[in-house]
Amino acid sequence: MEAALIIRKKRDGAALEREEIFDFIQRYSRDEIPEYQASALLMAIYFRGLDARETADLTEAMMRSGQTLDFSELAQPKIDKHSTGGVGDNASLIVGPAAAAGGLVVPMISGRGLGHTGGTLDKLESIPGFRTRLSPSEFRQALAECGMALVGQTEELVPADRKLYALRDVTSTVDSIPLISASIMSKKLAEGIDGLVLDVKTGSGAFMKRIEDARALAERMVQIGTACGKRVRALITGMSQPLGWAVGNALEVIESIETLKGRGPRDLVEISRELTAHMFLLGSVDDSLDAGRARFDAVIRSGHALEKFIQTISRQSGDPRVVEDYSLLPCAQHEDSLVAWEDGYLAGLDAGTIGRASMTLGAGRDRLDSVIDPAVGLVFEKKVGDAVETGERICAIYSNDRTRVERVRQMLGDVTVIAQEPVAPPVLILDVI
Amino acid sequence: MEAALIIRKKRDGAALEREEIFDFIQRYSRDEIPEYQASALLMAIYFRGLDARETADLTEAMMRSGQTLDFSELAQPKIDKHSTGGVGDNASLIVGPAAAAGGLVVPMISGRGLGHTGGTLDKLESIPGFRTRLSPSEFRQALAECGMALVGQTEELVPADRKLYALRDVTSTVDSIPLISASIMSKKLAEGIDGLVLDVKTGSGAFMKRIEDARALAERMVQIGTACGKRVRALITGMSQPLGWAVGNALEVIESIETLKGRGPRDLVEISRELTAHMFLLGSVDDSLDAGRARFDAVIRSGHALEKFIQTISRQSGDPRVVEDYSLLPCAQHEDSLVAWEDGYLAGLDAGTIGRASMTLGAGRDRLDSVIDPAVGLVFEKKVGDAVETGERICAIYSNDRTRVERVRQMLGDVTVIAQEPVAPPVLILDVI
Repeated sequence: MEAALIIRKKRDGAALEREEIFDFIQRYSRDEIPEYQASALLMAIYFRGLDARETADLTEAMMRSGQTLDFSELAQPKIDKHSTGGVGDNASLIVGPAAAAGGLVVPMISGRGLGHTGGTLDKLESIPGFRTRLSPSEFRQALAECGMALVGQTEELVPADRKLYALRDVTSTVDSIPLISASIMSKKLAEGIDGLVLDVKTGSGAFMKRIEDARALAERMVQIGTACGKRVRALITGMSQPLGWAVGNALEVIESIETLKGRGPRDLVEISRELTAHMFLLGSVDDSLDAGRARFDAVIRSGHALEKFIQTISRQSGDPRVVEDYSLLPCAQHEDSLVAWEDGYLAGLDAGTIGRASMTLGAGRDRLDSVIDPAVGLVFEKKVGDAVETGERICAIYSNDRTRVERVRQMLGDVTVIAQEPVAPPVLILDVI
Repeated sequence: MEAALIIRKKRDGAALEREEIFDFIQRYSRDEIPEYQASALLMAIYFRGLDARETADLTEAMMRSGQTLDFSELAQPKIDKHSTGGVGDNASLIVGPAAAAGGLVVPMISGRGLGHTGGTLDKLESIPGFRTRLSPSEFRQALAECGMALVGQTEELVPADRKLYALRDVTSTVDSIPLISASIMSKKLAEGIDGLVLDVKTGSGAFMKRIEDARALAERMVQIGTACGKRVRALITGMSQPLGWAVGNALEVIESIETLKGRGPRDLVEISRELTAHMFLLGSVDDSLDAGRARFDAVIRSGHALEKFIQTISRQSGDPRVVEDYSLLPCAQHEDSLVAWEDGYLAGLDAGTIGRASMTLGAGRDRLDSVIDPAVGLVFEKKVGDAVETGERICAIYSNDRTRVERVRQMLGDVTVIAQEPVAPPVLILDVI
């Protein structure tokens, strides 16, 4: 099958056959189809879309471009959680341990941050010694003995996605719901899971700014997973303000530990509880969401979830003493503040701008090869809906390069809104699909 | 300016700035922008189009990617003719000599055939010894002394078009009116001409099957030329049946010589006369089309046009004796026939299929690197509108590989229509823009 004819067929709006999709992806993965034909096909897909069947075929073709994992020797249900990315979103560090403590196996393969969103691997690597690369046998052993592992993508897993993602990034073909869906789901399905809970974020700090797009993405991913015989649920959650208090790598690790100790921010606890409860339901550990929520609260209260996190840190060569001594984590040299300039109620904290402010401090990457500073970031003491008094701190700014602080304070000030009338906190869980 | 942002801007439907277009094309020509970004931009242009100003900017950017010619030392008007490609279209071999004989300078740079359409260079190269590559000084001298030259594209002229064309071919981005316009016009404007007559073909044997597309292409090319300060006219002409009698390289050279001797087929004479008359008008050699037509007829009648062709053959190292002795041209071994299977009137000769039949005999290329056979081809003895009797020859089939003849006869038979009622010959000149 000539690659140019496959491109033409999609260009002209026809649905591609399963064989055509597999053929193209297989040959592209083996470098038999050049990048310039792949980018032309990606742009044609950007304009013409892929239907549900084509997207499922693309996902499977990508998944089969490399190794796939199989943990069927483990008796427990294998359920993972994935977030489409947000600002201050460290729920994985809470959900993973809580789900494992509740009886699931969580083979969590995460990514790094890019742009204004953070990445789980970057956060974990702020723990001294923590290794996000495990050998296949270490990964398997961690799952068997601890019920969880938090690792990065390997070269062997879904190589087609790595190639395609890099190409999409430089050819402006990232923003395509079928391509995003296939990229996420190919990696998750390669993990050998039975079920998956998706946290699809929407709002200024998310990739999907509009809830319709988030819903379309969620629906497409649920369709793909179902077509591949997996149990998949998607939550649409708000990302108009940052999640929790902290934005920044070590700062979010501290926040996760606090949450596992039962002292987390309200919104982070709520979202972690909902996600974990759905995982318990998909894994048939519980038969109702309420039972799942209760199990989440129980594993937090009992300290079992925290215990799983400590075990995981140890197993992945990190220093588990960080859980009791936060000063062992990277610490920024300077602390500054954004304070309220009048009395009122916090009415807006634009998550997108806050993510970019955090990136300006060095907590995020603007390019794939940027080096990040694990210590820096922001900690909010007020969230939308809270009352503030003049001079009261809204946010602490932790930096190592103080020349950037003024710029960051400016960015934050520009998007912080103080209203005179009381404001309701935004709804966090917008929909379940 | 980041290439990905330029791609995104076009993807999102915005018009690109002149600087963005120049920057992209310049860097692409120097291999600083990779093929995969260029193909993504081409596909975005396929979907979003380019407006008239963008297309003119693209044309100019492509033209400036290499050397441009300048014949301003020659006093005569420099006027060229270009056809968008058809089946049996050897009008250039008549128009060039006639225009030069009438007082114009014709710096004609032509291409090779691809697919079902033939190319002027291939036809000329069937003349023993004919060189289509002249050095810049030979080209200049030919124009100064003979008023015409028939040569191929050089490496130095419009390198961006060569790169882009090869890329479009393998990424299914050929069929885009702005891209076709820019490709044609960048090459023609680089010739240093004052004016240009375009023969935009439409019908089954042309790239533009529908007259609306042909008209859109013609309008766009006239706009580009005008924006660049040139006098440009476009004729929309029918390509539903082959032009003239002959389809095939040496066979079309013979037909051109016959036409220059005043014995050409009616339609080929008509189209050559019209094109040349418009050239005379653009070059201000004549002040009316009728005067231009009369001048065409005069240079044919006097033998001056034939004389120019003979001079050109000699100057470009070809054997001028072919004009008097056609047996010096490559000659096919076998002659077969398609004959009428009933009495009636020839009502259809599908040019597209006839072009492909000729390619099957070996007269055309299906790939850029195919080798063509200059001797083979078809010669029609009947055209649409002619009366035919059972057993009368419609078409002679000249081949060197007789195993292909049956297949060719089948192809021709399938698209040859004999009607019981008289049929009018198709209108040749459909519009002038």
